[in-house]
Amino acid sequence: MLPFLRPELAALKAYQPHPPIPEPYDQLDTNESPIDLPDTLKASLAKHYQQQIQANRYPDGGHGALKAAIANYVAEAEASVTAANISVGNGSDELIRSILIATAINNGSILVASPTFSMYGILAQTLGIAVIDVGRQNNFQLDLDAAQTALQENSIRVVFMVHPNSPTANPLTTAEIDWLRQLPEDILVVIDEAYFEFSQQTLVQESLNRSNWVVLRTFSKAFRLAAHRVGYAIAQPPLINALEKVRLPYNLPSFSQAAALSALEHRGQLLGTLENTATERETMASWLASQPTLQTWPSASNFIYCRLSDKALTTLGMSQAEGLHHVFTQLRQRGTLIRHTGGGLRISLGTIEENQRTQKHLEAVLTNL
Amino acid sequence: MLPFLRPELAALKAYQPHPPIPEPYDQLDTNESPIDLPDTLKASLAKHYQQQIQANRYPDGGHGALKAAIANYVAEAEASVTAANISVGNGSDELIRSILIATAINNGSILVASPTFSMYGILAQTLGIAVIDVGRQNNFQLDLDAAQTALQENSIRVVFMVHPNSPTANPLTTAEIDWLRQLPEDILVVIDEAYFEFSQQTLVQESLNRSNWVVLRTFSKAFRLAAHRVGYAIAQPPLINALEKVRLPYNLPSFSQAAALSALEHRGQLLGTLENTATERETMASWLASQPTLQTWPSASNFIYCRLSDKALTTLGMSQAEGLHHVFTQLRQRGTLIRHTGGGLRISLGTIEENQRTQKHLEAVLTNL
Repeated sequence: MLPFLRPELAALKAYQPHPPIPEPYDQLDTNESPIDLPDTLKASLAKHYQQQIQANRYPDGGHGALKAAIANYVAEAEASVTAANISVGNGSDELIRSILIATAINNGSILVASPTFSMYGILAQTLGIAVIDVGRQNNFQLDLDAAQTALQENSIRVVFMVHPNSPTANPLTTAEIDWLRQLPEDILVVIDEAYFEFSQQTLVQESLNRSNWVVLRTFSKAFRLAAHRVGYAIAQPPLINALEKVRLPYNLPSFSQAAALSALEHRGQLLGTLENTATERETMASWLASQPTLQTWPSASNFIYCRLSDKALTTLGMSQAEGLHHVFTQLRQRGTLIRHTGGGLRISLGTIEENQRTQKHLEAVLTNL
Repeated sequence: MLPFLRPELAALKAYQPHPPIPEPYDQLDTNESPIDLPDTLKASLAKHYQQQIQANRYPDGGHGALKAAIANYVAEAEASVTAANISVGNGSDELIRSILIATAINNGSILVASPTFSMYGILAQTLGIAVIDVGRQNNFQLDLDAAQTALQENSIRVVFMVHPNSPTANPLTTAEIDWLRQLPEDILVVIDEAYFEFSQQTLVQESLNRSNWVVLRTFSKAFRLAAHRVGYAIAQPPLINALEKVRLPYNLPSFSQAAALSALEHRGQLLGTLENTATERETMASWLASQPTLQTWPSASNFIYCRLSDKALTTLGMSQAEGLHHVFTQLRQRGTLIRHTGGGLRISLGTIEENQRTQKHLEAVLTNL
C-alpha cells in the first residue's frame, strides 16, 4: 500500500463499470431506456454542436438555462419550483457524492437499506464514511424498528431512500414516508426519484416544504440520456447552495447541457413511450408470475425483481444464490443480460422484441432447471 | 446554517464559474485556446454522435480506448507509458478531487504555493482538508526553506505544483525539481502539466520512475476541448488504481470520450497552431516589456503575467491592488477580458487580432493612468 494513501482504501475494490457490450446482447441489466433518442432530435443536437457550441470554451458553469428548464418541468407536477431549487450534477452520482461531502466526512455515517442502489455505500466508503445498512423485510419494506434503533446507536447524518427502490421496484409506503417525516431536522433525507417518470409518484412538494429533504432525479432513464450524464437535485435554496459550493465548478460538458435542454424541450415525444413501458411491465409481470419456479414482486418502475421459488430450489438442491447464478449465466449465454444483485434477479424492461426474447430464453432456462 | 451540514461549509463561498460571455468580448481570461476545432473535425464528431453513440446507453466507464490513445500520445515524448499508467477525469478538477480524497481527508493537509491554480485549495476546503500556503518569492520561485519548514510543522500528504505555474507562467526550476525529488515517499507530489503543449517541458518520465509522483494533463487548453471536460493523470499503476477506485464510475460522457479520441487522432492538425502561439507570445511579451508602466515576467505558457511598475503606482498614488483593478475594469469596458488574480494581471494569448486589440486597449488605459 502506498504510504500517502488513506489506509482504508486498501480494502476497497475499484467499481467495475459496465464495459461496452457487443451487439448481439439484449441489454436488460442497467435500467436504461431500450430506445435511443429519435433521429430528428439527434440530428438537431449534432447541428447545434457544429453551429452553437465552441469546443474550445469552458461550459456554462452556472447551468442557468438548464436549471430554469428543469424547474419548469418539475413544476408541471408540483407547484412553486424555481431554478433556485435546482442543482445539476454529472449524473446523480456526483450529487450523491456532494451530499456525502457536505454532511458526513470527518464525523458522520449514513443509513441505507439493502438491497438498494449500491452507489450510496460505494461513494461513502471512498470518503471514509461509515455505512449503516438496516436491510429490508421480506416484502422489501423497511423494518422501521431496526431503522429507528440504528439512528439511536449511530451518528447518522443522511438517510438514503430510492422511490421506487432499485433493485426491488417497490415505492415508499405511507408508513415509511411517515417515518421519514418524523426524523429530526439534523438528519438529511435523500429521496432518489431516478424512476419517477415510470412510477409517477413523487415527494417533491413534501421536500420543498422541509429544510432537510432533497429529491434526486436523472436524465439517464426515461429521458434516454445515460450517455450524457445529467442528474439533478430539488430542495430548498439553503441546501441547494451547499451542493453548489461543493460541486466541481465546470461539472457538466456543454453538449450534455444541450442534450438535457433538448430532451426537456421534446419531453412530450420522449415521455410518450411511457405507456408502452407500462404495458410491457404488465405483460412481463404477468408472465413471470405465471412461472411456478419464480417468486416475483409488484413493480412501479421499468424493471422487475424476482427470485427462484422455494419449490424450485428444493427440486434443484441448490441455494438461492447458486440457483440465481445459474439462471443469470444461462440467460447470458442465450444473449440476455440481466442483473444478479441483492439476492435476486433484476430484469430491465426492453423493447417488445427484447422482452419476448427474454421470456423465451428464461422459459428455456427454467424448463431445464 | 442547516444542522446536518458540516459547520466549516458556512465559511466557504460557492465558486463563481465563468458565466457565458456575450459576443463582443475578447475572452483572454481563462487560458483556453482562442480557436475552435476545425469545422471538418466538428462535422465528423457530429456524424459520430448521430451514427455511433447510443444516447440511451451508459458511457464506457472503463475508458479503454481513450486510455490507450492517451498513452500512445504521451509515449511520443516519453517512453514506456501504457494504458495502465493513465486515469481519465471529468477535467483535471475531478482528478484533483480524487487525489485529495485518496490521501488527505480525515487527517492530512496539502501544500500549495500562491499565486497558483486556485482549485487545489478550493477543492481541499470543500473536503475539510487544511491548505498550507507557503507563497512564492518575488520571481515566483518557491522559497524552499519555507516549504521545508511547512513540511516539518504540518501533516502534509500532497504537494501541488503547476509546471509551468498559473498565473505566473514560470516552469519549475532545477532547484525546485531537486527539492521535489528529495521529498519522502509518504508525500504525494502532483505535477500539473496543464500547459505542457505550450512549454514542451515535462516530468512524465521522472514521475513514472517514482511511486509518489503523478502528472496531470488536460484537453482543455492546447487541444481546444474545454467544453468537453477531459483531463488525465499519468503515474505508476498502484497510484492509478487508487484514483480509479475513488472516481465516479461513469464520470465521462460518451461524446466527451469521442471528442478526446478524435482530438488525439488529429493532433498533428490541432497542435500545428502551437507555433503561432509561440510567435504571439514573443510579440506580446516584447510589447508588454516595452511599457514603462508595467512589470512583466517570462512565460513558458499561453498567457503572460504582469503588474504595474512602482513608478506607475507612485504617479497614480494607488496601491498595486487598486491600480490593477483599475486596469482590469478599464480593459473590460473596452471589450477585453483578462484575469486579475494573485496580485497581478494574467493575460491569455488570443488570436493575432485579439492580441492586437489587447495592446491597443491596454495602451489606451495605460496612457490615461
